[in-house]
Amino acid sequence: MASFLITGASRGLGLALVKDLVSRPSSEVGKVIAAVRGDAPALSEATQDSFGRVSVVKLDVTDQASIKKAAAEVESILGDKGLDVLINNAGICQYAFNGVTSMDNLEESFNVNVMGVHWTTREFLPLLKKGRLKKVVNMSTTLGSIGLAPMAAALPAPAYKISKAALNALTVQYALDHQKEGFTFLALCPGWLKTDLGGGDMADLTAEEGAKASLDIIFNKGQEVNGQMPKVFVEGWETAEKAKGFNVYDGTNAPW
Amino acid sequence: MASFLITGASRGLGLALVKDLVSRPSSEVGKVIAAVRGDAPALSEATQDSFGRVSVVKLDVTDQASIKKAAAEVESILGDKGLDVLINNAGICQYAFNGVTSMDNLEESFNVNVMGVHWTTREFLPLLKKGRLKKVVNMSTTLGSIGLAPMAAALPAPAYKISKAALNALTVQYALDHQKEGFTFLALCPGWLKTDLGGGDMADLTAEEGAKASLDIIFNKGQEVNGQMPKVFVEGWETAEKAKGFNVYDGTNAPW
Ligand SMILES: NC(=O)c1ccc[n+]([C@@H]2O[C@H](COP(=O)([O-])OP(=O)(O)OC[C@H]3O[C@@H](n4cnc5c(N)ncnc54)[C@H](OP(=O)(O)O)[C@@H]3O)[C@@H](O)[C@H]2O)c1
Ligand SMILES: NC(=O)c1ccc[n+]([C@@H]2O[C@H](COP(=O)([O-])OP(=O)(O)OC[C@H]3O[C@@H](n4cnc5c(N)ncnc54)[C@H](OP(=O)(O)O)[C@@H]3O)[C@@H](O)[C@H]2O)c1
Repeated sequence: MASFLITGASRGLGLALVKDLVSRPSSEVGKVIAAVRGDAPALSEATQDSFGRVSVVKLDVTDQASIKKAAAEVESILGDKGLDVLINNAGICQYAFNGVTSMDNLEESFNVNVMGVHWTTREFLPLLKKGRLKKVVNMSTTLGSIGLAPMAAALPAPAYKISKAALNALTVQYALDHQKEGFTFLALCPGWLKTDLGGGDMADLTAEEGAKASLDIIFNKGQEVNGQMPKVFVEGWETAEKAKGFNVYDGTNAPW
Repeated sequence: MASFLITGASRGLGLALVKDLVSRPSSEVGKVIAAVRGDAPALSEATQDSFGRVSVVKLDVTDQASIKKAAAEVESILGDKGLDVLINNAGICQYAFNGVTSMDNLEESFNVNVMGVHWTTREFLPLLKKGRLKKVVNMSTTLGSIGLAPMAAALPAPAYKISKAALNALTVQYALDHQKEGFTFLALCPGWLKTDLGGGDMADLTAEEGAKASLDIIFNKGQEVNGQMPKVFVEGWETAEKAKGFNVYDGTNAPW
């Protein structure tokens, strides 16, 4: 019976993770904290029958005061058992349509996708230390792989790619620092998803499929993926043919 | 007869690069632009006998107005021939002695080491397009390699490591965008150097050795290292024994 906190739970993958978690038996999943920065009508609707398992807290990952406030609130909800799994899911994807020289949003992407994860993680670390599972999942992407960058050259989102590469580096710094305390930090690639960020119907998987496949890793993998970037495993998508070479969802670690 | 611009030329590797370049015959090296953000007495002394080959310009890589002003000045110095090689050398290394959770300088490191390179590069790109060699060298480090991070875990400089990983990702975005125009963008590892940043005498190589080995790559390699992170080659340091495993200066590309 593990407790979870998911940032960016208002829509997309974050919302799908909350929905999947509350659908599981209470032997598996205990409290689910859905963190949102603003109004989240879809979340309210999806969780109205959750019988108090879901708590919604306000948390803007770019606002350290808001993170502190949320951490205090979560502590009072979870008490001495602490938090088992933190999923740093909130993120933005920004574009630069005239090449990397036209990129004027790298600082903003960096602020949400990297600083936001750093600030959130360090604020919740004391609660995670009290928890049993000690897992921190940073939602990353193969687009943040520097080695795979040539394959993704056609997508004009340099700030997204660069900030996610930095997120991967941050993840590994945390992984190395806290390995001995039993922590698992991972940069998880959930697949290309039909969300607002993912670009809708063109994408490969539904948010629900991505959430399920992500939770497969989160539940079943431990320190063997500490400081790694596993891709989800999705049946039917594990060969290069179906996935047109790039998005092979075969459960292996993506290269940095 | 190639022209060069080096940022952070006041001391350390940047100063050593300027000194090495002016010592070469004018058949090889033409104008050398030494960019500094403040006073640079060692540079003035080292270049007083350079017979006008060195021009000193003011350039703070975190100040876009200062970069614009420097670019206009450099254009008036170099004229229609443009700039051949830009060396983005200015950088800072910041520490966090109580683990990554104590890191409060990532934004500043990011600003100098990543945004500074982005702003400088895009401002000088029109001049580089007019140049013959079209090379942009971003001074990086194996400490920015995410894959090698476990080997460097003992060095408490997470902001440096993460910002240099982001610099590598930025380098590859530029490399992919401008490859067809004949550009070479590389993230160069100059070795562990006895400079202020490198930590002085403990380091492996003098700034002069690092500069010479860096220029070996800059002069002799072309688009085959576009979007790569080559390490310098230094005789006597190309085997793991001498280098204690980590700092092997064997001229190969470092992993991301
Ligand atoms: N979709 C994909 O194909 C894909 C692929 C790989 C990785 N990912 C990663 O998966 C994560 C979720 O993506 P998604 O597709 O679900 O995106 P999405 O549908 O655009 O949802 C983004 C979520 O992040 C929240 N958010 C943005 N800025 C925030 C801030 N400053 N503080 C708190 N929350 C903030 C949003 O809240 P509001 O509703 O208030 O705006 C929203 O809940 C991201 O980290 C993304 O990089 C997605
Ligand atoms: N030393 C090593 O072992 C080593 C290893 C791998 C890579 N590198 C890289 O090599 C480069 C040079 O390192 P170094 O060892 O020569 O460092 P250093 O001796 O500390 O010199 C740093 C230089 O950067 C300049 N600088 C700092 N902030 C600046 C800004 N905002 N605008 C313009 N210039 C700025 C400094 O100018 P001021 O004099 O005005 O402060 C100085 O000229 C760095 O990018 C570093 O990451 C060094």
